[in-house]
This record gives sequence, C-alpha cells and structure tokens, in this order.
Amino acid sequence: MKKVSILDSTLRDGAQGEQISFSLQDKLNILRILDAFGVDYVEAGTPASNPKDLEFFSLASKIPLKNTLLCAFGSTRRKGRSIEQDEYIQALLEADTPAVSIVGKASETHAQHVLQATRDENLAMIADTVRFFKSKGKQLIFDAEHFFDGFFENSDFALASISAALENGADIVCLCDTNGGRTPTEIISVVNKVRELFPSMRIGIHCHDDSGCAVANSMVAVEAGASHVQGTFLGCGERCGNADLSVLIPNLILKKGRSCKITHLEQLCATARSIAEISNITVPGNRPYIGNSAFAHKGGMHIDATLKFRQAFEHIAPTAVGNHRRFLLSEMAGRSTLLEKIGHISPKLTKDSPELAAIVEQLKELEFEGYQFEAAEASLELLARRVLGLHKPHFTLVQYKTIDEYPAPNGKEQASAMIEVGVGGRIEVTAALGNGPVNALDQALRNALKVFYPQLDKVHLTDYKVRVLNTESATAAKVRVLIETSDGKMTWNTVGVSTDIIEASWLALADSIEYQLIGVE
Amino acid sequence: MKKVSILDSTLRDGAQGEQISFSLQDKLNILRILDAFGVDYVEAGTPASNPKDLEFFSLASKIPLKNTLLCAFGSTRRKGRSIEQDEYIQALLEADTPAVSIVGKASETHAQHVLQATRDENLAMIADTVRFFKSKGKQLIFDAEHFFDGFFENSDFALASISAALENGADIVCLCDTNGGRTPTEIISVVNKVRELFPSMRIGIHCHDDSGCAVANSMVAVEAGASHVQGTFLGCGERCGNADLSVLIPNLILKKGRSCKITHLEQLCATARSIAEISNITVPGNRPYIGNSAFAHKGGMHIDATLKFRQAFEHIAPTAVGNHRRFLLSEMAGRSTLLEKIGHISPKLTKDSPELAAIVEQLKELEFEGYQFEAAEASLELLARRVLGLHKPHFTLVQYKTIDEYPAPNGKEQASAMIEVGVGGRIEVTAALGNGPVNALDQALRNALKVFYPQLDKVHLTDYKVRVLNTESATAAKVRVLIETSDGKMTWNTVGVSTDIIEASWLALADSIEYQLIGVE
Repeated sequence: MKKVSILDSTLRDGAQGEQISFSLQDKLNILRILDAFGVDYVEAGTPASNPKDLEFFSLASKIPLKNTLLCAFGSTRRKGRSIEQDEYIQALLEADTPAVSIVGKASETHAQHVLQATRDENLAMIADTVRFFKSKGKQLIFDAEHFFDGFFENSDFALASISAALENGADIVCLCDTNGGRTPTEIISVVNKVRELFPSMRIGIHCHDDSGCAVANSMVAVEAGASHVQGTFLGCGERCGNADLSVLIPNLILKKGRSCKITHLEQLCATARSIAEISNITVPGNRPYIGNSAFAHKGGMHIDATLKFRQAFEHIAPTAVGNHRRFLLSEMAGRSTLLEKIGHISPKLTKDSPELAAIVEQLKELEFEGYQFEAAEASLELLARRVLGLHKPHFTLVQYKTIDEYPAPNGKEQASAMIEVGVGGRIEVTAALGNGPVNALDQALRNALKVFYPQLDKVHLTDYKVRVLNTESATAAKVRVLIETSDGKMTWNTVGVSTDIIEASWLALADSIEYQLIGVE
Repeated sequence: MKKVSILDSTLRDGAQGEQISFSLQDKLNILRILDAFGVDYVEAGTPASNPKDLEFFSLASKIPLKNTLLCAFGSTRRKGRSIEQDEYIQALLEADTPAVSIVGKASETHAQHVLQATRDENLAMIADTVRFFKSKGKQLIFDAEHFFDGFFENSDFALASISAALENGADIVCLCDTNGGRTPTEIISVVNKVRELFPSMRIGIHCHDDSGCAVANSMVAVEAGASHVQGTFLGCGERCGNADLSVLIPNLILKKGRSCKITHLEQLCATARSIAEISNITVPGNRPYIGNSAFAHKGGMHIDATLKFRQAFEHIAPTAVGNHRRFLLSEMAGRSTLLEKIGHISPKLTKDSPELAAIVEQLKELEFEGYQFEAAEASLELLARRVLGLHKPHFTLVQYKTIDEYPAPNGKEQASAMIEVGVGGRIEVTAALGNGPVNALDQALRNALKVFYPQLDKVHLTDYKVRVLNTESATAAKVRVLIETSDGKMTWNTVGVSTDIIEASWLALADSIEYQLIGVE
C-alpha cells in the first residue's frame, strides 16, 4: 500500500481562523490528541513571530509522543541578512523541534512585491535556510508558498524555487495553493509536471478552501504522486480555512487505499470532536464523515430504502469513522422513523395505530412552535409518554420567580430564584442565588427536589446551548434552549422553546430531570 | 463562451437537510430570489409524495418569472403499473410545470433491492415515463440515480439506463453521485466515457458532499463535458448536503469561463444570505465566496502583504461576488490592523503611540474575558474612545431589576424590568413589561432615555445572538451577546459578555445606544 504522511497545522495555520484563540493548555491538549490518533507531524507555532510559542515548544518537548514529530514553522531568512544575523531564524532554532517547516516564495510577484527580492536573492534565501536547518539535523519540510499561482504566472521561477529547496536537502517539498483559488484539473497537471521534472522529490500538498476544493485538490495531488498532505482538523484556518483533515484522511484511507500511521480510523469522530471542543467551535452537522447529520436520513423514500439495504444511501459504513446512522423526524419521514425511535415505549405503537398518529400530531405542533427533537431525544420520549398517558410527573411546578439585579445586592451574585414545587402531596419552597437567573433557578429546583429524589445528586448538566430562532425580532425573539445532562454513565438531551429565555431553560431543565426519573416511583 | 444551465434544488433536495423546514411562503420567496438571480431551473418539490407541493405549484404558476423554469420532481412509474394507473405520475402531471425531472435507477443493486425490478423492467419504467412527459410537451431532465456507483458496479446496466432516457427524448441526462462518495478522478473518467458513447447527450451533474468533493466533482464534470449542473444554495441537503451553488456558480463563471443566465454575480452574497435568512440557517463564516470570513485576514504577515498588494492573499476580488475584505483583530495581527479600524478617532493614534498601546492592552484583557470585537466594531470604537478619554457617557446606570415569574402575574407577560438611569444631573426611573427579561429591560431603558434623546425613537434592534462560551459549565457558563442595531440608514454591532445573560445583554444594549449618540451633546 502506498504511504502518505500527514501534517496537522491546526495549531499554526488553524489558529489564523477567525473564531480561534488557543491557550497554552489548549495547544498541549490538542498535541496529545493528534499524537494518539497517529498524525505524523504537528506544526504547532511560529516561534519567530509569537514569543508565547517558544514557551509552548519548551513544555511540549516534555510530552512523550509516540507517533508525532513536533514541527516549528518559520520563513526563509530575510533579505540582506545572514542566517546568523536573523533573529527569526535563531528563534526557530531555539524552539528545538525535530522537524522544521520553512516557507519560501515560489511566486515571482510575491517575491517582488512582498520581499522586494530578485530571483537570485530569493533562491539564495531558500538555499541558505534549508541548508542551515539540515546542518542542524532537522527534518525539513519546504513550503513553496503560492506555488500553483506562481507556476501559472512564471513556471521557471516557481520550479527554480522548489529545485533550490530539493538540492539543499529538503526532505519534503510541499506545494501550496496559498490563496485557495485553484481547481482539481489545474492541480493534476501541475503535480504531474513536478513529478516528471523531479522524480526524486517527496512531494507534499497544502491547500486552502477558497474555491471549496481543498479536500479534492489534496486528493488529486496524492493520486498524481504527492505522498505528504497538510491540513487542519475541521478545516480551521484563515479566510475559508485549510484542507479539512477529518475529511481528507478517511478519503485517502478508505477510497484511495493509502496507508499512514493512523490505524484506528474509528477514532476519527472522537478525535475531531475533542479538537472542536477545545477550539470552542461547533462541528457543522453536515460535515462529511464526522458531522452529526453525515449519516442522517430524512426523506421517507431514503429511509425506506436504507431499511431495505443499509448501504443504499451511505457511501461508507458510519462505524468505520466512529459515527452512526440516524433517522430523522419530519413531515416527510413519516411514521416508520418515529416508530424506530419510540417503539420500545409501548406495544400499542404500530405504524397504523391511532396512538402513533396522535404523537405525530403533537410533534408537528411543537415543531411549528420552534421545537426540534433531532437533538433532544429525551424530550421526544417524554412527549410520547405524555401522549400515551404513560408519564406520571415526578413533580409539578406551582410557581417560580427569578430576580436579576444590578448592582448585586450582596456584591456577588446578581441573580436569585424562588421556586415552589409539589411532589406527591407535599409542597417544597426553596430559593438559591446564582451567577445568572437560569443558574439560580437550576440550583433552586435541585434544592427542592433532592429532598425527594436523592439520586439527582449524581446528575449534572454538561452542555447548555441557546439559539435565537427569529433573530430579526431581536430581544422579543423566540429562543430554543438545548440542555445535555449526564449521570456519569448516560447522557441525554432535552429542549425548551419560549420568547422568555428563563422559561425556555426551565422547560428543558424540567424535562431533563423527568427523563432521569422515568421508572422511579 | 461555453454555456451551462443551472438547476437549484434548494426547495426539493435542500429541504431534506436536517435543519430545514420551509413554509409555503418561504418557498415562494426563495423562488422569486432565484429567478431574480438568474437560475435556469428551480426544482421545487415532489407532488407525488407531498400534497402541499401541489398547492405550492399552483401558487407559483401565478408568479411571473423572467429567468427560471419551474420544475417538479418525481420517480419513474412504479413497477407493474401503467403510466395511467400510477397516481404519482398523475400528481406530477397535475403540478403543471414547464419542466419535469424524473429520477430513475442506474444501479443494478438499487433496481434489485429497492424496486425488485429486472433490468428490462427498469428500462421500460424509464422509457415509458420519459416518453409520457415528453408527449405532454415538458422539458425533461432525467436524473440517473446512483449513476457513478452503478457504473463501477455494472457499467452496462448504468449505461443502458441513461441510453433509454436519451432515446425516449430526455432533454438533459443528469448523472448523479447520490451517495456523495465519489472523487474527482473517478468523475472525470466516467464523464469522459459517457461523452464518447453518447456524443449527442446533454450531460448534467448532480453531486452530494459526503466526501467533501461535491463542488470539485461538479467542476471536473463540466470540464469533461457536462453543461448542466444541479445543486442547492449553501449546500443544504440530506446528510452532508448537495453541491453548494453559491461556490460552484462563481467557480464556473470566474475560473472556468462558463456563461449562464446569471449576469450579476455581484448579487451572489445577497442572494445566498437572503436564502439563508429564509431557511433560518447561518451562513458559515468560512464558506467560500459568501462567508463573512471568506476575505478576512488575521495573520499579521498576511495583512501586511495584503496592504502591499491587494491580491496577495485573495483568489478573486471580493467585490466580484458582493463580499468585502476585512482585517481582523488578534494578538497576531497587531497594531496596523487596529489603526486601520480606529485611526479616524484621533490624530494621536499612530502605530507607535502609547495611546494605541493602551487600547491594545485593554482589548487583550477583554478578549481574554470572552469578548470578540470582530463582529462588534461599534463596541470597539467605544472602547477606544473610553481609553482615549474621548467618550462622555450619555447616561449612567444606577440600578436595574428584572423579575421573571411563572405563572405570569397578569396572565400575559412573564417578565418585568425596573431601571434607574441618570442623564446629566437628572434621574429617571422607568419600568416595562416584556415577553422575556431582556425584552423588558430593553423597553424600560428606551422609556427612560427617550425623554432626553428623542432620536432614539428611530432606532431598533435588528438582530440578537447568544453564544454560550464554555458550554460544559452549563447554566453557570459565560454567555456572549451580540446585538445589531439599525436607524434605517446605518447598522452597527455591539457586544456584551457575562455569566448572567441579562447583564451581557445590558452591556451590548448600552453600547448600542451610546454608539448612536456619539457626537450628540
């Protein structure tokens, strides 16, 4: 099997993404995750332009890595300075990483306009820098910036740049579509040309997604002879981002028969989601392979076909990448999907039973109000139980009142909540302070209920999301609150919708607790 | 120039997207937008499986369209039924559209497993259905479902299917990568083969994005001879979605020299954003061409280079698609970006002035707390004015109190707010009810201030967004509120961060009003 090595630049190029801001600890955590998954190189920072990166590399060097080589990133030496005089080069050396990636100009226009360097000056800058780091025993990846644009503008200039890197010992020459504007047929023709001219060159590919082709461009480059790919997890990066490794890696392994150090591709989803969590970004539902909708079937015909033979509308088995198949609810999907989800509740539920029809009706009404049950299956189950008369509420709300004051009366918590709930024949009135009204209400409710249900002590909320539904109504808009709860073993999701964020949160909170207590007398 | 026709399936295949649910009015509005933009065909529904679609087509037929042909979608007749007996076929006819798209099986496995049809039965179903709709004078697009998968599995079967459609008069034969698992080199080889075998065939391409290659696959198909493309705006659709027309269209026009009815490509952003608004989805910031970050520069070196020559890190001019260049703030970007944004406030602000350094410090502190000023430039300007001592507050908050009660004391509004503000030497105390605590506080503040600043009457909030920053802290998490305000002419954005959603909203509200009053004595 043909091999390919993988460089993840989430911590370098990915950090240029608009929403991204990594702490030192974030970077160390992501490094550990990428190493465990089996990424060959982690390009983790630019010591020359960011002094914090030196601290990172110092700490990172103490982490025992089993798959990954740490890589620091920097430019060729500056024009008119020797290697020794260039403090940026010295900072890069100081990072003391086993691998170094050096970016140099492969476009005549860029060399002229950005560096004010002639062709010969540019070639000398590349040659000196590559030679220097090879003399220090580094693995050296040369990133030929704007290579494809440069090739179409002046191919001699572009080819001379990569030739200089190769001759001076670069281990990998990575061809970059820095502006992300190139398309697959262009990439194929240029990589073919480079492979013919430099048969001994280990070719890499680094694509940006400004034409929506970064993954495809990387794929065709590999098919044309590249054996090193660069990208970022989830495609984070400046502008439209980099080639998304969470899509590119399974494509190369599952569709193009490439092998690499990643031997547990079923860890892909977990890896990508952990990185997303640390990066504080949401994995888009429709992201190939790893998205929550990537194997979700909504159309009735598609669902029927998928029930007939599983691969009907799936390009790969979802388990191969650690994802799973889902059947969605919607007017189109119809009853068989719903039945698959809630059929276990009661034998009365069959495809044509009036009970199922009644649930569908209720579902439609709530969806019209802004509810979505795809991400709140615990609320769906409660809804079905309520319609079926199988739900005995474990508590009833009599009243609540939340107060939020500025300045905080006690100098600390601005919010307080009072709640009155009934359990069986008893009434409990409790109160709590909080750092916000929802937090105060959440605490007050738990205080009230734990008297009756001590098992609630083990439960905590693990996620809280707010979506404003009709943003143009501004502060009068409806909001949907999604809550994820865990008891350490199981996790469940509930939903609430209201124009009042406190009420929406209450509804999701109440469902979360009711769901946990199903079966408790 | 080579021509290409465009079919938008946002209202049909796009409606299969997990988050999508269109009302009748939504569909009519999207149709109007697509027609104005210059899309050739709008595939707007499946009359056979969704009775509501017949109502849509009846209303849509009354809209005068200047570019678009309405298209209804359905399957080939069912096995063992004549055209006349098949009520689905009759429903499709009843939709009374000038164009019809008919999906038929091009994969032997699917014909066997899903339809239980032999090769001959399948061919007869295709032939009969195409012939029938052609006899009714329709433009006919034949969608060869699973064509690429079918071709690799049994090419004779797949080719016989499209041959049957062609021979019976299909105007366009659209090759579908239904499962979205194919890659560019496969598409190139198969489309080349089809073009050689059927030189008179008008080839279309319909790709899904399960391998992240839908746009690239559509592009290479066009370069190999396809002259009709199908997709959805923003790539909405089942699982990972369809080829994103908002990326594919500019790629074909700007990069591959194709022409179509779209003559105002600079309307692309507005078109895509309107459709997103109606679909109630967010345009991802990093979406090529149309995303808010698509031409946003964050890295300091990139910004410097882009200031030197504009196309340094841009594959096209942002104005060509109605987007614009942005320079982002971040530790990496440095002072020149900040100066470009706020330099107009004071001549004291220069790249090396202590005033600018003080603003950078303040900015870093707030970013650490969770603020982001990229999307809140009005708050950034106020921050700078405060640091420079140029901001004279137009009001001061003495106290506020919001109360949220269930059940609502008056049976309607659950929330009320009291506020005490000082303006000059005067104190104003007002109160308001609201459908949520933030709404009530917003109203109370406006009531208090309009006594002093009648111009606030013209102002209204146009957008309100909430992001939970550290979701794992659940109801104790920090939230960031972004508010967009408009006075009918100008629009500005402000931000607030707190663990208390009411305080976060207050901070953004207060900035919004202060910004409007800059310059008012």
